[in-house]
Amino acid sequence: MGQYVAPIRDMQFVLHEFLNVTEEFKNLPKYQEIDTDIINQVLEEGAKFTQEVLFPLNHSGDREGCTFNAADKSVTTPKGFKEAYKQYVEGGWAALACDPEYGGQGLPITLNNSFYEMLNSSNQAWSMYPGLSHGAYECLLEHGTDDQKRLYLPKLVSGEWTGTMCLTEAHCGTDLGLLRSKAEPQGDGTYLITGSKIFISAGEHDISDNIVHLVLARLPDAPEGSKGISLFLVPKFMPNEDGSIGERNGIACGAIEEKMGIHGNSTCQMNLDNARATLIGQPHKGLQAMFVFMNAARLGVGMQSLGLTEVAYQNALAYAKDRIQMRSLSGVKAPDKPADPIIVHPDVRRMLLTAKAFAEGGRAFSSYVALQIDRELNHTDEDVRKEAADEVALPRQSSRPSSPTTAGSRRPKRCRSTAATATSPNGAWSSTCATRAST
Amino acid sequence: MGQYVAPIRDMQFVLHEFLNVTEEFKNLPKYQEIDTDIINQVLEEGAKFTQEVLFPLNHSGDREGCTFNAADKSVTTPKGFKEAYKQYVEGGWAALACDPEYGGQGLPITLNNSFYEMLNSSNQAWSMYPGLSHGAYECLLEHGTDDQKRLYLPKLVSGEWTGTMCLTEAHCGTDLGLLRSKAEPQGDGTYLITGSKIFISAGEHDISDNIVHLVLARLPDAPEGSKGISLFLVPKFMPNEDGSIGERNGIACGAIEEKMGIHGNSTCQMNLDNARATLIGQPHKGLQAMFVFMNAARLGVGMQSLGLTEVAYQNALAYAKDRIQMRSLSGVKAPDKPADPIIVHPDVRRMLLTAKAFAEGGRAFSSYVALQIDRELNHTDEDVRKEAADEVALPRQSSRPSSPTTAGSRRPKRCRSTAATATSPNGAWSSTCATRAST
Repeated sequence: MGQYVAPIRDMQFVLHEFLNVTEEFKNLPKYQEIDTDIINQVLEEGAKFTQEVLFPLNHSGDREGCTFNAADKSVTTPKGFKEAYKQYVEGGWAALACDPEYGGQGLPITLNNSFYEMLNSSNQAWSMYPGLSHGAYECLLEHGTDDQKRLYLPKLVSGEWTGTMCLTEAHCGTDLGLLRSKAEPQGDGTYLITGSKIFISAGEHDISDNIVHLVLARLPDAPEGSKGISLFLVPKFMPNEDGSIGERNGIACGAIEEKMGIHGNSTCQMNLDNARATLIGQPHKGLQAMFVFMNAARLGVGMQSLGLTEVAYQNALAYAKDRIQMRSLSGVKAPDKPADPIIVHPDVRRMLLTAKAFAEGGRAFSSYVALQIDRELNHTDEDVRKEAADEVALPRQSSRPSSPTTAGSRRPKRCRSTAATATSPNGAWSSTCATRAST
Repeated sequence: MGQYVAPIRDMQFVLHEFLNVTEEFKNLPKYQEIDTDIINQVLEEGAKFTQEVLFPLNHSGDREGCTFNAADKSVTTPKGFKEAYKQYVEGGWAALACDPEYGGQGLPITLNNSFYEMLNSSNQAWSMYPGLSHGAYECLLEHGTDDQKRLYLPKLVSGEWTGTMCLTEAHCGTDLGLLRSKAEPQGDGTYLITGSKIFISAGEHDISDNIVHLVLARLPDAPEGSKGISLFLVPKFMPNEDGSIGERNGIACGAIEEKMGIHGNSTCQMNLDNARATLIGQPHKGLQAMFVFMNAARLGVGMQSLGLTEVAYQNALAYAKDRIQMRSLSGVKAPDKPADPIIVHPDVRRMLLTAKAFAEGGRAFSSYVALQIDRELNHTDEDVRKEAADEVALPRQSSRPSSPTTAGSRRPKRCRSTAATATSPNGAWSSTCATRAST
C-alpha cells in the first residue's frame, strides 16, 4: 500500500525561508499574530492526521469504492472514511481558514494550502468530501443572506455539514449557458428546482449529517444563455431554526459515476424533483456569485496535482532503491546482490529527478499563489491588494488578447477590472475569464 | 459503445499507392502471385469480421472482464469472446501469414499487419488471445524439433490451440537473467518445470482447446545470468500422437492480474508445479530462441497503438461533430442550435488533426516496416535482405553507440551481425539489442 511521509521540512523551507510568510503576515491585520511556531505546529499536526488517519484508508478506499444503495438512494463511503471525517471535524481542521465569526480558526489560506497538499497526498478521494465544503462556505460568506449565513455557515465551518457544487448537466459541461434546470418561485422567497446534474463530487454520502448543495438553475423569466443563470442553496435536509435536521428535500442521487478513477469519492448523478431552494445573490447573476471562490478553487485543483506528485515521487524513490534489475553502466554497485537497484540507471534517475523537481517547484509556486490570495484579501495597502489580485489572475492572459489598457503592462489586469468580459461576445461564458469577475 | 469503420481506403492508399506492394512482392518468390485483388479482398473481409463480430464485444468485454474460477483454476472470458474466436478460426484468419506446409495461407506479413490494425481497433483485449499464438508459431517454426513441429504447428496455424510467452517473474521483468524457474531433466528428453510467472497475457482462458506455453527457465547446470536461460514448450494439455488432447499438465493459473486496464484479456499469474516440458532450441540459448520473432512482436505492439489511435480518432471526430458547446470565435456556425458543434473550436480541431496525423503516419510507417520484414525474409537478393533487416533493426541505434564499423554508415547494422551484443558487458540482457540476434 505504499508509504507517505509529509514533507514538513520542505514546506517549512518554502514558507519560512523562501516566502518569509510571517513577515508578510505583519501587513495583513487578520494574520499579524501568526508566527513560525503556530505554522509549524499546524504542519506537524496535519502531518500526523494525514499520515496516520487518512493514508491508511487510501488504498482500501480505492479498492472498496463507494456503494450506491438504490432502495433509499443513499451512498455508503468506504470503510473508515466516516470515522476519519469525524476525527477531522473534532480536530477543527474544517475550520482552519474560516472566519472566527462563524467558528473558524482564522488562519491564512497559505497555511490551509499546505495542509491540503498533505490531504491530497494521503488520500485525494477522501479529501474531496471536505474540499468542496470550503467553496460553499466562501460563496455563502460573500453572497448569502443573513438567514443563510446564520443557518449554514457555522455547520460548514465546523464540518458537521459538507457542501457541493452542482453545475454540470449532461448536455453542458463548459457551456453552462445551456443548462436547463428550472427554478419556480413560490411567492414566499423560496423556489422549487427540477432538473438533473452529473459528475457531482461528494453529491451524496454518509460522512456528514447534511449536505449543502449549491445549484445553478434558471428562473422562469431568465434571459437565454449565461446571463440567465441563478445560484441556489439546496440542502439535502431542510434545517430547522435551531440548526437541527428537518425534513428530507427533493434532491437525491440517481447513480454513482466514474470520474477519472476516483473511486473513494462519490461522483453522483443528482436528480432534483421540486427541491426546495433559496436564492444566493441576485437573480441571473449566479455565475458571478459562484465564481467568487474560483481562484482558490483553481489553486485547490493544482494542489491535487501537487499532492499526487509528492506521494508518487516518494513511492517511486522507495521502489527504485529496492527493486533490482540489471547492472549499472559504470560498474557493479551492489556486488552482494544479483543485480543493482534500478536507481543506478540514468533514465530512472532522470525520471525521479523530474518528479522531484515538479513536486518542489509546484510546492513553491502554489504557496506563492496562496500567499498572493491572502495579500489580495487582507493587505492594508490597496495597491498591493490589486497587484496580488493581478498576479493570481494571471492565467486569463493566455486565453484572451490584451485590451488596449493592459497591453504593454508587465502584469495583466485582473478580471475584476474587466468584469464585462465574463460573457464573451457571442454570449457563451468564458470560464477562464470569469475568474473573480464579481469580487 | 462508439463506432468503428475499418479505414480500408486509407490502408489501400498506403499499400498500393504509397508502398506499391504488389510490385515489391514480385521480387519475393513466395508472394509473386499476390495481386491487388487478393489484398483488397482480405482487407474487405477483415473489415467485416472486425466491425461486425469483434467491435460489438469490445465494450461489453471490458465491462464484464475475465473471471477466475478458483475451484478448477479456469478462466472464463467475457460473453461472446469464445464464439468470436470460433468464427476467427473458421474464417482461416489465424493461418493468414503462416506457412502452407502447416496449413497456412502463405500471405505476406504486410497484409497480416493491416489486418492486425483492424483487430486492435475493434477489440484489443480479444486480439491478444490470437496475437500471442503467432509468436509461438514463429518460434517453433524456427527452433522446434520435428516432433514439436508435427504436433503443435498445425494446431497453432489453424488456431485450434493458442500460445503464450511466459517470461516475467515477480522479481524480474526487464532483467530476465534473474529468473528462477527451474527445469529438471528427466533423462528421456523431457523436463519438469517448477516456478511462477506473472503478467502472462492469455495465460488461461476458455476460447481454445489447448494452450501452448513458451516458458523461460533454468537447467540445473545453467550459468548465472542471461547466459543460463533455456526455452521450453509447456502445453496446458499433453497432446496425444494423433493430435488429440491428453492429460492435464502441471501449469495452472493462480490469479487474474490487472495489466494496463485490459479487462477482456486474461492477464494471469501462472504457477508451474512439475510441469512436463520439452526444450526448444539449445540449452542456455533460450533468449535467442525466443527473440527470433521479436521484430515482428515489436511491430505488433506498435500496431496496438495504431489500432487504438484510429478508433479513438474516429470516435472523437464523431463526438466533436455532435457535441455542442459555445459559439465559434469567427461567428455562429449552427444558428439553428443553441451552440455550435465543438469541432468549430480551434483547439478541438488541433487535437483531432493531431490524432489523425498519428493514425495516418503510423499506418504508413508500420506498413513500411512490415514490408521490410517481408523483404528481409523473402527477397531474392541477399543485399536487399540485409538492407531490409538493417532498416527494421533501426531502434537499436538509439540505445547503443555505433561500433567503428557502423559509424558513419547511413543505416545502422542490424543486431544479427553483432549477435554478441545480445549480452551487455556486465552480463545483463539488453532487450533492445537482442532483437533477432539469433536469426
